This record gives sequence, C-alpha cells and structure tokens, in this order.
Amino acid sequence: MSKPLVVDIHTHVYPPSYMAMLRARKTVPYIHDPEQGEPRLIILSSDDDPAIPIDQRGRPVDSSYSDINVKLTFMQQHGIDSSVISLANPWLDFLDPSEAQEWARRINDDLEETCASVNLSGNPDQKLPLKGRSSLFAFAVLPLSAPSPDIIVEEIKRLRSLPHVRGVIMGTSGLGNGLDDEKLGPVWAALEETQLLLFLHPHYGLPNEAFGGAEVTARYGHVLPLALGFPLETTIAVTRMLLSRVFDKFPRLQLLLAHSGGTLPFLAGRIESCIMHERNFVKNGGNVPGPQRSIWEILKTNIFLDAVVYGVAGLKAAVTVGGATDRLMFGTDHPFFPPLTEGEKDWLSVTTNYKAIEETFKDENETVAAVLGGNAARILSLE
Amino acid sequence: MSKPLVVDIHTHVYPPSYMAMLRARKTVPYIHDPEQGEPRLIILSSDDDPAIPIDQRGRPVDSSYSDINVKLTFMQQHGIDSSVISLANPWLDFLDPSEAQEWARRINDDLEETCASVNLSGNPDQKLPLKGRSSLFAFAVLPLSAPSPDIIVEEIKRLRSLPHVRGVIMGTSGLGNGLDDEKLGPVWAALEETQLLLFLHPHYGLPNEAFGGAEVTARYGHVLPLALGFPLETTIAVTRMLLSRVFDKFPRLQLLLAHSGGTLPFLAGRIESCIMHERNFVKNGGNVPGPQRSIWEILKTNIFLDAVVYGVAGLKAAVTVGGATDRLMFGTDHPFFPPLTEGEKDWLSVTTNYKAIEETFKDENETVAAVLGGNAARILSLE
Repeated sequence: MSKPLVVDIHTHVYPPSYMAMLRARKTVPYIHDPEQGEPRLIILSSDDDPAIPIDQRGRPVDSSYSDINVKLTFMQQHGIDSSVISLANPWLDFLDPSEAQEWARRINDDLEETCASVNLSGNPDQKLPLKGRSSLFAFAVLPLSAPSPDIIVEEIKRLRSLPHVRGVIMGTSGLGNGLDDEKLGPVWAALEETQLLLFLHPHYGLPNEAFGGAEVTARYGHVLPLALGFPLETTIAVTRMLLSRVFDKFPRLQLLLAHSGGTLPFLAGRIESCIMHERNFVKNGGNVPGPQRSIWEILKTNIFLDAVVYGVAGLKAAVTVGGATDRLMFGTDHPFFPPLTEGEKDWLSVTTNYKAIEETFKDENETVAAVLGGNAARILSLE
Repeated sequence: MSKPLVVDIHTHVYPPSYMAMLRARKTVPYIHDPEQGEPRLIILSSDDDPAIPIDQRGRPVDSSYSDINVKLTFMQQHGIDSSVISLANPWLDFLDPSEAQEWARRINDDLEETCASVNLSGNPDQKLPLKGRSSLFAFAVLPLSAPSPDIIVEEIKRLRSLPHVRGVIMGTSGLGNGLDDEKLGPVWAALEETQLLLFLHPHYGLPNEAFGGAEVTARYGHVLPLALGFPLETTIAVTRMLLSRVFDKFPRLQLLLAHSGGTLPFLAGRIESCIMHERNFVKNGGNVPGPQRSIWEILKTNIFLDAVVYGVAGLKAAVTVGGATDRLMFGTDHPFFPPLTEGEKDWLSVTTNYKAIEETFKDENETVAAVLGGNAARILSLE
C-alpha cells in the first residue's frame, strides 16, 4: 500500500518565550546554563537534588525543545506529515496566580503563530492537503493557577479564535488539588461546550517513598519515575475523575490520555471490580454516591489513547478497551527520549512505536493507517 | 468439550494459629472482636485510621479466612478441582526477629497438614487424580524478619520435606528494604536451587500522598489502594529486581506475579524503552551496570502470571508478554472480594475472571483449559 498519512499527536515544544522564563528561574522548573557544556533542564523535583552538581542535574536541553525547524526536520526524518504540538510539562502549573492568564495567552498565541507560519495559512476555511507536506496544529495550555476558574473558562472560549488549536493539554494537578476537585466543574463544562479535546499528561509522578525512598529512586536514574511513576500518575488522575463522577456529570467530555492511558487499559477490570465490591458506595449500601457509568463505557465514549506504549502487549490492551481501532492515535513524545549516541537519525523511541503498531495490526493495513494518522485526522478535524 | 481441570493458584488462608496471633495484637495487622457484630480484620495501615470507629475499621473477617471447609465449599461452588493455598498478606513480615523462624515452621507445617488431610494422602509418590475431587497444595511462607538470611535459607531447604508445598509466597518488602536488596542473594540462590516458585504478592500499596493524601484516599473506600496501589507495588518490586540485576545473577529464578503482574505486561515496553535511554547505565555511557537481559526475555523465562485481572484487555497483554499461552494460570483471590449481598453463591469476582478467560480465548478450547488448570498442573507438578 502507499504510505499512509502519519499524524503525531504527542509531541512537545517549549516556545522561546517559555525557555526565557525558565532561564530566569532558580527553582524547579528551571534551565541552568553552565559555563561549559550544554544547558540543563531541571523539571522534575527528584532531579533537583542538591547532592548532584548543578551542571549534571536534569537533562541536556538543546534546540529541539524550542526551534520549530528542528521539529520539522525530525518529522521529515520519521515520515510524519502533521504534528499536534503541545507545551511540555510542567506547563504553567507553577506560575504565580497573577501571571497565569497573561502567560497562557502568550503561549497559546505563540503556538498559533508557529502553526500558521508553517502551514502558510491562518485561514481555517482554506483546507490544505495534509499528506506529503509538513503541517502543524496545537493543543493549547490553560492558566490553571489563575485566581478564579472564570479566567480558565475565558481562555478556553478565547481558543475558538485560534484556528489551529484542536484541544488543550493539562497535567494532573488541576487547580492544585487533583482532577476530582469540584471547583473544576466550570472548566469541564467549558471543554464539553467547546468540544475541545483534553490531552491529559503526567508530570508529578509518584513520591519517592513509593519506590523505596530517594536513594533507591536515584540509583536507577530516571527509570522508576518515568517508566512507572508517570503512567501511574495518569491512571490515578483519571480514576479520581471517574470515582468523583466527573464522567457522570459531564458525559460529553473528551479526553486523550498520554502513554496509552498510563496503565488504565490494563487495570480497568480491576478498577471496575473494586468499584463493584466497595462497601462505601451507595449501590453497595454505603453513603458515597460512587460512579454510575462503568469504566468500560467511559473508555469507549469519553477516552482516546495515544499509541506511545512501546510494545504489542500494551497496544493490544489499549485497543481492546476502546472497543474498536478508531480511538488510538500515533505519537512520539518528541523531543524526549532522543538517541543517546550522536549521529543516530532514526530515534529508537519512535521506531519502537512504529514497529509495535505494525506488528499488532499486521495484515490489517487499514487499521495501521487509522492508528498512524487517519484516526487523528478525523477526531481532531485536521483536514 | 468436557469440563477442564480447574486449579486456583491465587487463594489465601489464615490458619487458626495465625488468627489467634492477630487477635492478640493491637497494632496493624490485628483482628478486633467488637461486642456486637462480626470481627474486623485490619491489615492495611490506611485502614487503621483513628478517625474511624474501631468497630468499622478494615473489613469483616469470617470463617472463610480460616476454616478450610468453607474454602472447599467455595471450590465446589465454583468448579475448582484443586487450590494452591497461601497465607494471606501481610504474612510474617511484621514479626519480631526472634519469633520469625518458629512461626514460619508452624504455619508451613499447618498448611502441609491441611493439604494432607484434605488429600487423604501425605505420600507424594502416591499420585491421585486431580480432577473431580477437591485437592489442596500450598505455597509456604518465609521467616523474612529473621535475624539472618541463613534462617530463611534453612526454612526453604526444610520445605523439601513437606510434600504438598509447591513454592513460597512473599511480599515486596523482602528483608525490609525491598527486593533489590543484595542481602537477599542467598534467598534467591536457595529458591533457584530448590526450583520452588516464588509467588510475589502486594500488601503495602502506595503512600497515600500518591493518591492526593489520606483524605482523598479514604473518600473512595478501598478502591484507590486496592485497584491501583496493589498492582503498582508489584510492578515496582519486580522492576527493582530487574534493575538491580537479580535476573542476570539468578537466571533460573521462577516468579509467579499476583494480579497478572500488577501492571508489568502493559508497562514492559515503557520500562525497556526507559532502560535503553537511561544515561546512568554503563551501556549508555554511565556508571551503573544496569540489567543485561531484556524485560521481554525475563517475561518469557522467569515470570509466570496469574489470570486475576478481571478483563479481556489485561489478559491479552498478559498472554502477549508470555510469548505463548502456557505461562498464565487461573486464580480467585479468595476469600477477598466476596459478594456484598447475602445469599449470592456465585462470587462476581470469580465469574468475572472466568468470563474474561473464555472471551479472550474463545474458540480455543485447549487454551482455555490450559489457563484454567493445565498450565498450573504442569508448572507446579500437581499430578
């Protein structure tokens, strides 16, 4: 078959304005410019260990984070036609409330301008062919630390004026108390009303104590926080939404979960079983309402998953809970997980996901094409 | 087809001697006998909340925990021919070092006696048909808090004299510092030498902070700790074994992971990708040795999984990482997750797993039979 359309829905940027802000900071998140060598990006609190020399903390940060031309080169190298770019974690979570609205507007306008200039058209009515040329769309960021949810709702509504925005990216902290916070109601309502997709992405991981303490965690570099902490953070966040009845109250909310849902597809059965056996819930004789809709229904109607899971087993679970192959979308997590040796043009982190998709859906060319790009083009109205 | 042999490899007991010990305690784990109503079992530290009246803490504990006749009735009700019983969490983890050896011997002798009396034969050479009659085998417990690993090794070797013991059950704490503790080397070596299967089972979950604090955790009853904390605890424990090179040093170690590996099958790809991209590891230019064997190889040669995952998606991931259908074994988690309304004879927690197996392997009768009992009979030499 001819090469299908490929859309990357999980790919991050730090616009130059955001990089400058990080450089001016001295607490997480921040960028440190050593006298010699590459700048370092310290975004995880576990990386900001005073025992580690500051020139070795965090990870090297190069132009792939902020120079859109580097992303376009990466896309061409990996056969990606279109990317839906999003601000990388920790977004604007850490901002002083007084600065949140201004920064969200600035970043979202920057993202829109980047997409428009690459696509050579700011006019949403002028449809362009997606395939065979590089195009960009964006997930916007929200001013979650703003003094009132009204400001967040205002920004969500303003996003309708930005023609390349197709959703919003959000961490698991919400207004600071997680995504089961009742104060988020107006935000969920605004997302439902605008039908903007909410891309839920981890950042905070798990407390080091979960891994046996800070010393054990550090012993294995980033493996425990990134491989296990991140996916569980996503799973906890969406389970708290479920248990607090967010999906009962906002049944049209549309979520895209990072890393194929963290571990949600695998644990969905256990979560549902624990709900069925929870004595605290009203239906079992308790006093807490408990969710009304089953997790299986929510996975088929409210949740989309990326295909960033690096293996056939994960993809099989992800596609099974979706009930069909039309809710799964290719992504790369660029610019994270770059090759560790210089000169490698093909990123292992990307080819691993390509291969897993091909192996999982072998002999089903249409499914491969849907997961690689067709689903994203349809779900996000990219064409 | 005729009804296949059904073996339950995940089913717990508290022998009467253990129950008596719990009744004599006032700190977790303990049993509280209220003046009115059923006794309460408080085994999770999160359940021992002083804000909850003591008569409502934990969960009701009835004779299903300690009366083997109740288990035999449960087995007959659910078509289970043979059960491999194991002490329930938290095993002997909490014992004073001076008591550990004595209690391990006592519990293991109790388990052996129970199996022998039910099977009406203490002679391992006298093979009995498994199917159509109720038979018991056991996973023994280890004196992990003993003052020296030598005592643990001594008990492992003594287990060879107990004809119904087919392995050992262990939590994730090890000697108190997790399963990547170098001091566990002699224990792994003894398990390799005896080829006793190590049934790895969660108990400690995650710190409440992972779920947003104690108040959020308690808000949803047991759902967050049991549905998410338990599976991640198992995943963290086995990942720490992998990262600390336990499977490189003890390549013949055989593990059975509870709850289909927690989340390991789903996260295996991400774990392997994070290892490939970890700068701290020698192969990537760092100073930490890092694991030599891939997670995919270990999942196919060192790890068995139970089928206690309550859904098709989880089972598909579990069987995919095993490379075949011969490493997956039916279990119930009895006596946990009983029906919440009286008079229900069929346990939802059991029928959910039966149905998931049938749906996952529909039209493959031989695979269904293997997962339900054939694999366990072969792997544990039950016949």
